[in-house]
This record gives sequence, structure tokens and C-alpha cells, in this order.
Amino acid sequence: MEKKFIYADYAAASPVSDEVLKAMLPYFSESFGNPSGVHSASREAAKAVAQARRKIAAAIGADYSEIYFTSGGTEADNWALSAAKGKKIVTTNVEHKAVLNCCKALEKSGAEVTYLPVDGSGFVTAKQVDAAIDSSVGLVSVMYANNEIGTVMPVEEIAEVCRKKGVLFHTDAVQAIGNLPVNVNGIDMLSCSGHKIGAPKGIGFLYARKGTPLESLIYGGNQEFGLRAGTENVPAIVGLGEAVKLACEGVHDNAEYVTRLRNKLIDGLLEIPDARLNGSRENRLCGNVNISFADVESEAVLLMLDAAGICASGGSACTTGDNEPSHVLTAIGVPAKYISGTIRFTLSSRNTEDEVDYIIKKTAEIVERLRRIRKA
Amino acid sequence: MEKKFIYADYAAASPVSDEVLKAMLPYFSESFGNPSGVHSASREAAKAVAQARRKIAAAIGADYSEIYFTSGGTEADNWALSAAKGKKIVTTNVEHKAVLNCCKALEKSGAEVTYLPVDGSGFVTAKQVDAAIDSSVGLVSVMYANNEIGTVMPVEEIAEVCRKKGVLFHTDAVQAIGNLPVNVNGIDMLSCSGHKIGAPKGIGFLYARKGTPLESLIYGGNQEFGLRAGTENVPAIVGLGEAVKLACEGVHDNAEYVTRLRNKLIDGLLEIPDARLNGSRENRLCGNVNISFADVESEAVLLMLDAAGICASGGSACTTGDNEPSHVLTAIGVPAKYISGTIRFTLSSRNTEDEVDYIIKKTAEIVERLRRIRKA
Repeated sequence: MEKKFIYADYAAASPVSDEVLKAMLPYFSESFGNPSGVHSASREAAKAVAQARRKIAAAIGADYSEIYFTSGGTEADNWALSAAKGKKIVTTNVEHKAVLNCCKALEKSGAEVTYLPVDGSGFVTAKQVDAAIDSSVGLVSVMYANNEIGTVMPVEEIAEVCRKKGVLFHTDAVQAIGNLPVNVNGIDMLSCSGHKIGAPKGIGFLYARKGTPLESLIYGGNQEFGLRAGTENVPAIVGLGEAVKLACEGVHDNAEYVTRLRNKLIDGLLEIPDARLNGSRENRLCGNVNISFADVESEAVLLMLDAAGICASGGSACTTGDNEPSHVLTAIGVPAKYISGTIRFTLSSRNTEDEVDYIIKKTAEIVERLRRIRKA
Repeated sequence: MEKKFIYADYAAASPVSDEVLKAMLPYFSESFGNPSGVHSASREAAKAVAQARRKIAAAIGADYSEIYFTSGGTEADNWALSAAKGKKIVTTNVEHKAVLNCCKALEKSGAEVTYLPVDGSGFVTAKQVDAAIDSSVGLVSVMYANNEIGTVMPVEEIAEVCRKKGVLFHTDAVQAIGNLPVNVNGIDMLSCSGHKIGAPKGIGFLYARKGTPLESLIYGGNQEFGLRAGTENVPAIVGLGEAVKLACEGVHDNAEYVTRLRNKLIDGLLEIPDARLNGSRENRLCGNVNISFADVESEAVLLMLDAAGICASGGSACTTGDNEPSHVLTAIGVPAKYISGTIRFTLSSRNTEDEVDYIIKKTAEIVERLRRIRKA
């Protein structure tokens, strides 16, 4: 095989694409000025930041002044939730930890949070959100698509409900951009992370509609329209601008191709006895395959897949270190005998049919071998 | 001249050095894994992060477990101040805005802050700090060296006072590392930023001594020992590790060379009539020249310097956008007729004697021309 390994963990991190790296490189050592300065080295940097902001705004239907660069999706989520300003937050029990653990911290300081349950495929409905909104609620946060099981939430309907009730609506779109057509129409705040879409780690943005009562999370200089202090991460911002543009332009072709690979992988893996697909078959991220095998431990499967040159994960990379079963799988009611044998493969347009065949073959062998060992 | 311009704004931003960029490059598109994963792509990334953490710890006399990567110096400062946990903070009136504006925000939410005045050169004394600490104080934050006027604070003595009084001591060392030998001995928390020392923008670290009651500023996954959520910025962390190592190893040679350049620049510029050096001549950052010229506006000087190919600044890049005179120059009592004609040149070992000669010549011409225009 030409590649070092078959990578099927794109929801955890993607490589920086050639175009993106090429766009970034001049800003490390040549046009390295601090964008806040007044000289030509600074102006070059400031221009590049402005251009990236413009590209992103155009790609998601936002205005230039509504894009705030952050250090990543997690910071963007935390920041968005702070806009509740002490009022009650309504969210779901399958959000990313960046939302859930921030909610827990806000609860500690006295805020109220409602965690809506989801159905067996991971969906929350606009009706549930509607019923949960009373006058004490300031903000609703529902993810665009789930990072573990790929379930695509009815975000437009939820946004509509929030608008009618006059409540802020935030969505974590970290897994959505590039996999789904994303437009901020009707959404008040939206989070994005670079390293899921071919931009580098350590950069993301928060979209916040004009008039959103956003206060700073990080105080200092006047960067990001006075709302997010700290010298702008120029090369990464340039990379993010390029990556968002490419991801949004290519979303239809990408989704079509990756959906075909995904369906092939799902079908192949479901032929393994006692396997269970988690999440919806239809309203699912194009690259996501979250599958459980009874009577095996996911860690053993992953290590053996790794030995076979396949990179996959047990769930979200961000929950590694938690010694608890996945909160998402628990929330959708995956039976205990499956939950501990769960593998997440996340594909991208960089994957091939041959790779999918190889993944299916190796996974089947590994699951069978581990089951045999267990029975022995 | 071979270079595009003569850069004399290193305190605002430095170029990523060749060694640092070389160290970073493999982590964008090759070893791009999420360090929290369990497969080989992730292990490579996790190993690189661990190695960078080890390098930094070794360079400043800290333990591996005491280095927390952040998105930069501003986040590190904000985070450090949160360790006061509602108790009174003692700081100075010449801190970076990352400290001062964070203090203002904490005051809004009910915290008390004492802003100690400085003397005419920008110094605060350990005695002043001692006198300000009563039982209500939880944390003292005094910068290692001032970003505008380069004054090096008596940090060791202040740390000693804090230790005796049982109060946390934080120092913003963003301008110190690489220019002064920095060791965390006696210090509880120390902030550092990448782009001031040849690492990229968007990365920094907070050193926090074992046992410091640090809580998260950004919640989510279990990264950074469970205290700073968000996927680790692997390439930037690798770059920071290398840059801190190089900066600390080279600090003596660097300081000797740059001090010579700085003194030459100071002497040359002080020959311009009605010029005034701000800050201490002795206990001053090796690269810092902050000088005021009566009867000119700094913006005009800077634009003309830029046209002559010289990049300098009017003060801190992070205060651009404030329409107020520098809080630092005000604090040290610079007379009004000088304050608006202030230029900051910050040099590094990349500068040459010829460049300094050129800066002196051009600045003298520009100041003279502007004064002539004003009188006409």
C-alpha cells in the first residue's frame, strides 16, 4: 500500500490539505507581522485576515462582521453559551463535551440547564425544543450533526422555533461543514473547527448574528471587533478561510462520493454477525459509520485494526480519558452488550473503495478472532 | 537592501524561525492525528506534544506536569487570574491589556483589584506589593518585563514576598523569555506567548506550579491534564517547544548582542533634539527602545518610517484601536508634549548595526521634517 496507513478517523482530525498549507506558509516567516500594527508587515497580515473572514462569511451566508476567529470549536462553543448570560439553557444529552461540560460548569455557578433526551437514532425534535422553552430560557444549543453517531439534527426547524420564541439559537456545526450544505439563515450562533475540514488545529470560528449580545470570553487587546483578545493567528486564519471555502464549494460532490463509500462500509460491516449500526441510516453524516459488535471490547479491536494499518476510533477523540461509556450511545439506548464493542469509522473523499473493502475484511477477521479468544 | 524592510517591531510579532518551521511542518499533513486517539497517527501526535512539553519544562526549570498549552499569552493571563477565585487581586497599572482588561471584567463581576502605581521608570517594588497584601488578597500579578517600555520588574523579590504571605504569584513573561534568563523558581504561574519568540501565533503556555488551584477557563474534552479543553494544536505546540528551547539556550549571546544594538540606537536617537527615553536605561529589555519626540505625532512618524522601509510601532500592538494615550506612558508620568510623539523600536538578533544606523538617520530626518512642517 502506498499510504502509511488507511485513515478512517476524519471526524477526529483531518490532514491539512495541500492548497490550505500552501495558502498558510507565507504567513509564518515572511508576512509575519502583527495585524494590529501600522506598518507594511502588519498591513499584509491584516489584509490576509480580512480576506479569510470574507471568504468564510460568503461560504456560509454570513456578513463579514459576524465571523469571530477563536482557538477552535471548543472555545467557540464555550463562548456561544456565555451569551445566555445566566438565563436557562436548553440543550440535548448528546452534545459534544465542549457544550455539555461547559453547561455543567455554568450549572455550578448557578445557571439552569435542560438536557433534552433524544430518540433511539439520536434525534431531538423541534417540538421537544418548543415545549422546553419558557420565559426563563435564554439560549438553545443543539448540534448540527453528532460527532459520534453522525445523526443530523433538524436544525432549521429548531432555529425556527427559537426565532418565534425570541430565544437565541446556537449550533455546534463542527462536524457539519464540508459534509452538509451549511447556511446560517435563521441561526444566531454557529461554531466551526479548522482541523475537521482540512485546516490546521488551533483555529475555528464563531458565527454570531449581528445584535447577538456576545461578551468576551478572553479579555485583552481589541482584536476580533473588540470581542476576542489575543494576536490573530494569521497563518491558521488564512488556512481556515481557504478550507471553509473549499469545503463549502465541494460539499455536494464530496457528500455524494463519501455517502457511497459509507453505505458500502455499513453494508459490509453489518454482515459481521451480531453487529448493530448506531444512529440513523438516512439522516446521517456522509462519512460516519458507528457500529457495535457484541462480545468484543472496542479497545482490542482498535489496537488490532491499528496493527493492520487502519486508524479508527472508539467514539469521540475528545472523550478519551473518560472511563465512562459514551454518553451518546447511552442516550440512544444501545444495549450494554453492544456499547463496549463500538467502533467509529469516519471517512472522507480521500478514502477509496479499495480501502473500504480492506477495512471490512480486516474488521470481520478481527472481530471473529477476538470472539474466538473470548470463548476459548 | 536585501530584505523587504527593516523590521524593528519584534515585541509585536517575530517571524517563525527556520528551525521552528521545519520542526512543525510534518505535523500539518503527515502526522496529523488527534493526540487523543488510540491509533498510530494519534500516538505520533501525542508523542510530539509530550516532547514539546518536556522541552519547555526543562528550559524554565518546571516539571512536565506544570506546563499547560493555551491559544496564546492572552488566554494564559486570563486563565491565571481566574485562580484568584473571587479573592482580591493585586497588580500594577502598567500591565498588558490581557491582565488589565481581564481585571476590569473581574471587577464587573464583583472582584476587588488593587492597581499599584509605578515610579517614573515603570518599576513597582516588592515593598509596595508587600504593603498591598492583606488577608483579602488571593493573587498578585506583576509582569516580568513591560511590553511598551521594556522595564524589567523585580520579579524574584516580589515572588519572595508573595510566598511569605501565602499568596499566589503570577507573572506575564511574554516579553521576557529569550531576552532574559527565566526560571520559575518561586513563581506560581507564568504566561508565555509563541509569536514573540520565533514560534507561531495562536500558541502559548501557562506554567502553573503543582498544587495551584487552577480551574478550567475552557471546558470540554480532557486535554491538558483535564484543565484546558480543545484538540491540542500539535504543529504549533511542536514549534513552541523548539522555540522556547532555542530562546532559552541562546539567551545570553542574544542579550549581549541585542543590548549593544539597543544602546547604539538609544544613543543615536537621543541626539535628536527634544527626545526623551521612556523607562529605565539599565533594567530594560535588551531589545526595547521606547522614545518620545516633542512636537510630532507618532502616527505620522510611523507612516514615514514605513515609507522608508522601517517597521516600528507606537506602543503595544495590542492597544491599537484604543483612542487613548498609552496607559504605561501615562503611569510613568511622561509629559503630554512627549506622549503623543512616542515610537517603540524593538530589536532582535536578526537586526544589524547597519540597520540601526539607517533607523537613526531616517528617524532624525523624519522628526526634523515633521517639526518643520508643523512650524510652517
